[in-house]
Amino acid sequence: LIAPELLERLRSILDASQVLTDDDALRAFGTDATTFLDPAPSCVVLPRSTAQVRSIVRFANEHGVALVPSGGRTGLSGGALAASGEVVVAFDAMTRIFDFSPDDRTVRCEAGVITRDLQRFAEERDLSYPVEFAATGSSRIGGNVSTNAGGVRVIRYGMTRDRVAGLTVVTGRGDVLELNKGLVKNATGYDLRHLFIGAEGTLGFVTEATLRLSRAPGDAGVLVLGLDRMRDAIEALRAFRQRIDLTAFEFFSESALRHVLARGEHERPFPTPSRFYALLEFEAAGSGAAEDAASVFEECVRAGFVRDGVAGHGAAQARKLWRLREDISEAISGQTPYKNDISVTVSRLPAFLEEIERIVAERYPGFEIVWFGHIGDGNLHLNILKPADLPKDEFLARCREVNRWVFEAVQRHQGSISAEHGVGLLKKDYLGYSRSQEEIAYLKAIKAAFDPNNIMNPGKIFDP
Amino acid sequence: LIAPELLERLRSILDASQVLTDDDALRAFGTDATTFLDPAPSCVVLPRSTAQVRSIVRFANEHGVALVPSGGRTGLSGGALAASGEVVVAFDAMTRIFDFSPDDRTVRCEAGVITRDLQRFAEERDLSYPVEFAATGSSRIGGNVSTNAGGVRVIRYGMTRDRVAGLTVVTGRGDVLELNKGLVKNATGYDLRHLFIGAEGTLGFVTEATLRLSRAPGDAGVLVLGLDRMRDAIEALRAFRQRIDLTAFEFFSESALRHVLARGEHERPFPTPSRFYALLEFEAAGSGAAEDAASVFEECVRAGFVRDGVAGHGAAQARKLWRLREDISEAISGQTPYKNDISVTVSRLPAFLEEIERIVAERYPGFEIVWFGHIGDGNLHLNILKPADLPKDEFLARCREVNRWVFEAVQRHQGSISAEHGVGLLKKDYLGYSRSQEEIAYLKAIKAAFDPNNIMNPGKIFDP
Repeated sequence: LIAPELLERLRSILDASQVLTDDDALRAFGTDATTFLDPAPSCVVLPRSTAQVRSIVRFANEHGVALVPSGGRTGLSGGALAASGEVVVAFDAMTRIFDFSPDDRTVRCEAGVITRDLQRFAEERDLSYPVEFAATGSSRIGGNVSTNAGGVRVIRYGMTRDRVAGLTVVTGRGDVLELNKGLVKNATGYDLRHLFIGAEGTLGFVTEATLRLSRAPGDAGVLVLGLDRMRDAIEALRAFRQRIDLTAFEFFSESALRHVLARGEHERPFPTPSRFYALLEFEAAGSGAAEDAASVFEECVRAGFVRDGVAGHGAAQARKLWRLREDISEAISGQTPYKNDISVTVSRLPAFLEEIERIVAERYPGFEIVWFGHIGDGNLHLNILKPADLPKDEFLARCREVNRWVFEAVQRHQGSISAEHGVGLLKKDYLGYSRSQEEIAYLKAIKAAFDPNNIMNPGKIFDP
Repeated sequence: LIAPELLERLRSILDASQVLTDDDALRAFGTDATTFLDPAPSCVVLPRSTAQVRSIVRFANEHGVALVPSGGRTGLSGGALAASGEVVVAFDAMTRIFDFSPDDRTVRCEAGVITRDLQRFAEERDLSYPVEFAATGSSRIGGNVSTNAGGVRVIRYGMTRDRVAGLTVVTGRGDVLELNKGLVKNATGYDLRHLFIGAEGTLGFVTEATLRLSRAPGDAGVLVLGLDRMRDAIEALRAFRQRIDLTAFEFFSESALRHVLARGEHERPFPTPSRFYALLEFEAAGSGAAEDAASVFEECVRAGFVRDGVAGHGAAQARKLWRLREDISEAISGQTPYKNDISVTVSRLPAFLEEIERIVAERYPGFEIVWFGHIGDGNLHLNILKPADLPKDEFLARCREVNRWVFEAVQRHQGSISAEHGVGLLKKDYLGYSRSQEEIAYLKAIKAAFDPNNIMNPGKIFDP
């Protein structure tokens, strides 16, 4: 734990009110949404500016203090977990949105801005910040950038990476870098901006970002399809994409749907239960897409790979159908789900899914499996629910055993062991299934260049 | 120059026919499209595979031999110039296109594939590779990736960076890395793919790329507008963008147009000469965009910031109008143009343009200036033509003097001293106008991690 005199020093660098040491604060700020490890930070600091973050980093270098960044604390891989007496640097007090430029369609904001607040800011200006995922109501921009957040509309709008026009970062050496400055074209040496995106705070902390906004989308059309086999989802994706520019193509299993229905807030989309469901979304306004979608749907039913389906007309119905997919995470959250967040290319999905299904059936007999994910971009969330009578650590140990089989399949299909949740603490033992030993050696060399004293979120992604 | 026994060694690593030492080859392969420095390589090697490239890099490490990569040799900053006895690694023999996946909309190709060939490959499959610029008929994919090529449709389709789903590279240490493997979502540590994009071969050589294709665009509508002031181009851009999804918004000056017209192949777009012209393009098919464009045009004329204009209906007319913009580079190429390729954010363009115009008028009296560029993404090409009676080195010296004033303006407006041409040899003295000293120190540290013996395109971008 941090020495009392260092705590005093921190209080003098910042304001005393910006340094928290009470148990509630340590518990609240010391972890993200992962539940498998307990937080144990030394203290929590709440900087108000890039300059204050730099002061904290310089202090940390001077005294060999480890820092853990904390945004919305919605991460699922322990990337923002302070389990070893670190100082938590929480961005809750850095929430300014500024420098909106309609000509550039960009806006600048501090790392602590909540994603939803940025979305509202854009909507009020007839634009949109289109990165959307389950936690946008509480996740913060710095965390989005540091994990390259993805979500449900990636097939149309890309990842967070694709929205970042500029970044202000404080590196592990305590340098403040202004990266790319909002430019579209800038061929002046290595693009460090992209190095910090997805680096989970291990090279430095993102303090501000310039983000690209999009044209506000027109009214959305939504279809939910019932499918017998996972392979059919790919057939449907192919059929719809040939005719319509989709904004989302999501996927969930009957077991996932049952958990959502059990909460009593929603009804089945159509009476016949199917093994799997696909939810697809497109811009409906004026473009004839709704008619095209209806006719592709008929073709899919005739061809035999779609069993049943329902269309949501208008915003209210579309919202209702989306809730069937969006509420899954929350519906299963009480059952300590062990989350695998894996991806392969779309073309590899059918073979990969069959293999994973076989592995899971063999290796997790008796465990309840809840599938959902983003078929359109190759990303599947494989959730294993903890049986009520199994102690948490035993459950975790079992899951980690089975991981090996899942990740070997991921590796055979050249996939990712963490599609959008990051590596953090929970996935770092498995990094080698997605990155070669040579690559990891380069990652470590880069880490050493930006953070030679290993004070920035140490032990996350890999051990030095 | 390379010792005869090392040349023998190279001939035994490859095939003797893959090692060229004749003067014609040295001259042809030893430079890109820059004309200010003379090529002087030791020899040229033509690898046929990633494995051969790795052998060459390992050989170079062992014997301290410097390597310069060579693609389509269309670069404008001397990035592929071998002026100091280097071994040129030319990718002319690596031209395979393979692993096309309609479900992923990706295709894999070797670094030596000519951009136009990839575009044709996509078109034959009802898709498009939408990166388009003056040199796509001879530029090669490895060079596009290594300079993050941009061009005329960036406002709709992004830079080369935005098309790269995966890369195979051989690093300066001789490691072969498979980066990102075509995945859409992959949050497993630092994204080295983006580090190699735009690195101009200084960290390693790109040997293969997996590229994202787009839906084939519908018929294009094209407008050419006559404008009195540069500021009016921004007003027009704003007006059109509010109503239409533009695919291009280009810009050229009357002096640029005159050079094109002087070749006798084209006519003025409309009788009245204007100081400046904007060319805008949109997808016309079925969407009502052509009618919208016509009405925005009328509004702009009424508001007084567009003087005149013409619309190109149908592919043939659209092509004709595009030639007015596309032929500029070739039309001035005989006059040894000194090219500045600068960018700022779109919102800063009006003030920036006025400042640059003033500087140029003050500092280049008597020199002919030809402006053109990509207003929609903030990128301007400022071409200074060499007076016929001024010796080349004197002209170059004068241009480099004036650069200081131009680049100080770029810096004040937080712009880029090289928007899409890269830094290479010609711009490296000016890197500090766009990147801070702290940033440059990190670039050098990264270079040292990937290429500790400084054999990969040494002296390009920066000196170690």
